[in-house]
Amino acid sequence: MKKLVNDPRRFVAESLAGFGAAHGDIVRVNETPAYVVRRALVAGKVGILSGGGSGHEPLHAGFVGLGMLDAAVPGEIFTSPTPDPVLEATRVVDQGTGVLYLVKNYTGDILNFETAAEFAQAEGILVRTVVVDDDVAVQNSEFTAGRRGVAGTVLIEKIVGAAAERGDDLEELAGLAARLVASVRSMGVAIAPPTVPHSGMRSFELNDDEVEFGIGIHGERGRARTAMAPADELADAVLDAVLDDLPRPAGARVIALVNGMGATPVAELYVIYRRVAERLGEIGVEIARSLVGSYVTSLDMAGFSVTLLTVDDELLRLWDAPVRTAMLRWGG
Amino acid sequence: MKKLVNDPRRFVAESLAGFGAAHGDIVRVNETPAYVVRRALVAGKVGILSGGGSGHEPLHAGFVGLGMLDAAVPGEIFTSPTPDPVLEATRVVDQGTGVLYLVKNYTGDILNFETAAEFAQAEGILVRTVVVDDDVAVQNSEFTAGRRGVAGTVLIEKIVGAAAERGDDLEELAGLAARLVASVRSMGVAIAPPTVPHSGMRSFELNDDEVEFGIGIHGERGRARTAMAPADELADAVLDAVLDDLPRPAGARVIALVNGMGATPVAELYVIYRRVAERLGEIGVEIARSLVGSYVTSLDMAGFSVTLLTVDDELLRLWDAPVRTAMLRWGG
Repeated sequence: MKKLVNDPRRFVAESLAGFGAAHGDIVRVNETPAYVVRRALVAGKVGILSGGGSGHEPLHAGFVGLGMLDAAVPGEIFTSPTPDPVLEATRVVDQGTGVLYLVKNYTGDILNFETAAEFAQAEGILVRTVVVDDDVAVQNSEFTAGRRGVAGTVLIEKIVGAAAERGDDLEELAGLAARLVASVRSMGVAIAPPTVPHSGMRSFELNDDEVEFGIGIHGERGRARTAMAPADELADAVLDAVLDDLPRPAGARVIALVNGMGATPVAELYVIYRRVAERLGEIGVEIARSLVGSYVTSLDMAGFSVTLLTVDDELLRLWDAPVRTAMLRWGG
Repeated sequence: MKKLVNDPRRFVAESLAGFGAAHGDIVRVNETPAYVVRRALVAGKVGILSGGGSGHEPLHAGFVGLGMLDAAVPGEIFTSPTPDPVLEATRVVDQGTGVLYLVKNYTGDILNFETAAEFAQAEGILVRTVVVDDDVAVQNSEFTAGRRGVAGTVLIEKIVGAAAERGDDLEELAGLAARLVASVRSMGVAIAPPTVPHSGMRSFELNDDEVEFGIGIHGERGRARTAMAPADELADAVLDAVLDDLPRPAGARVIALVNGMGATPVAELYVIYRRVAERLGEIGVEIARSLVGSYVTSLDMAGFSVTLLTVDDELLRLWDAPVRTAMLRWGG
């Protein structure tokens, strides 16, 4: 598998440079240390900051902008950013009202964001951290104590970002984020492995007749290798696993995200979405809003994930609030 | 290569059904015959209609909505729609002020849209057709007399759609579209072939050390098989071919589109965009606006294309005008 790459060691830096050149009206890209910050910071607003290893684009830089993140801190491919860039981005976005870190649950990310938070707090910057662990596939994994954080992160970044924009304070935002984490579940399946730019090698092998059910976004093993199956069967298996674990009060509505893993054409994602919508309709779960596309990827892995977030009217108002980032845009 | 597919013969229909379920606020999907129509048609507005073989999603259905297309008519995979669905969609969108067809230059599309136009005109509906042929790679090809129509189509649909929304009449819109066709050039390169759902087979073979330079969006042969190269060299070769052919008045500004072919991660597209921006800066061509993403694809082909459209202030105003479709959204 070939890649559009120059020097693999410069891949993340060059991609960020291109991102900055394309979206200079929305973001500013700092080269060293590497972080992406919203062009127009808002005086007095709590800063919303996320980050993690690269290779999951458009997560997180694609979600920096009005109504979502104030900064994204990318590490190298599948590698947590060190505390330094997190700390520097924290200083840049802090408006005296504190900064909320939204961190996907991987051991490296937890450690590095925690260290950055300690340094920032020593400088008098208020920091709160909420860890996202929406992946129901496995309880622990190669890089994780507890569940992994995956595509649900996008929904949380959108809703928490909207609440920050309307003026919620740091404690309120941390509380909202924790409530969202408790209400969101995801699972994914890989039908073809990604190729890592540094090695040019596939990160795992998968036979033509099998899929990795419960795949992680770094190619980590999931629940099982299972037989390749028609799209609807794969969708059903993933959706059942998500529904089994999702807290659903009677009459609950959801935001449904069908997410591509990087190399999956959007036409195939809509085949999956069709089945998800049909199944949810059958069991009386209303899809209040939906999102279909490649939002949290694993380089050029082929496959998809399904995320459901249980919502109420207030969360839907925050979802519908204006957003203006490179990747998500609506509402003026 | 595996696909997220049930019955391959139902792939396009199921994908459209999912698209309609996800975007019911913007479009209505008609099943038989298959077409996608804007939910809120505007009384008295000229209808803008496009279409062609499926497998290029989000083109064209992803661009139906306010400020862009009124209808999209998809055929089966890489197969032109027959005149029937084109005619029916024409009847649905016509507001008595006529319908403009934007057709990519493939022999099947030309014939079928022409037939539909004749039937529509026999019913008293005014129809004008503008053919897009932006691909500089080859003069004629397997499915084409003359140049092929590729990713430049998106830019034309956006700008013509905005002009229709402001109230331009059919003749003005046809003139604008023709002017845009004269001002836009594209070329693409494939680094991995697509897999066709019906056969489960790759549509061509490419060795690990080669690329198809000047690839068509159905996997048609381009200018040459050349050696796989670093991203910047591929970007340079494609950009040079586009610039060689692009009419550029002194001081010309451009809209630059770096388009993914379906399986290319967005992080790689930004590496390409970075180089395109750098090179254009060096020769004094200002990128007034840009677009980076997978907009005109070839199933799960890996690779990219570069499109440049020469623009003036009026075209930029039309580009910036509000658009609200499944795939492009900005400006309220």
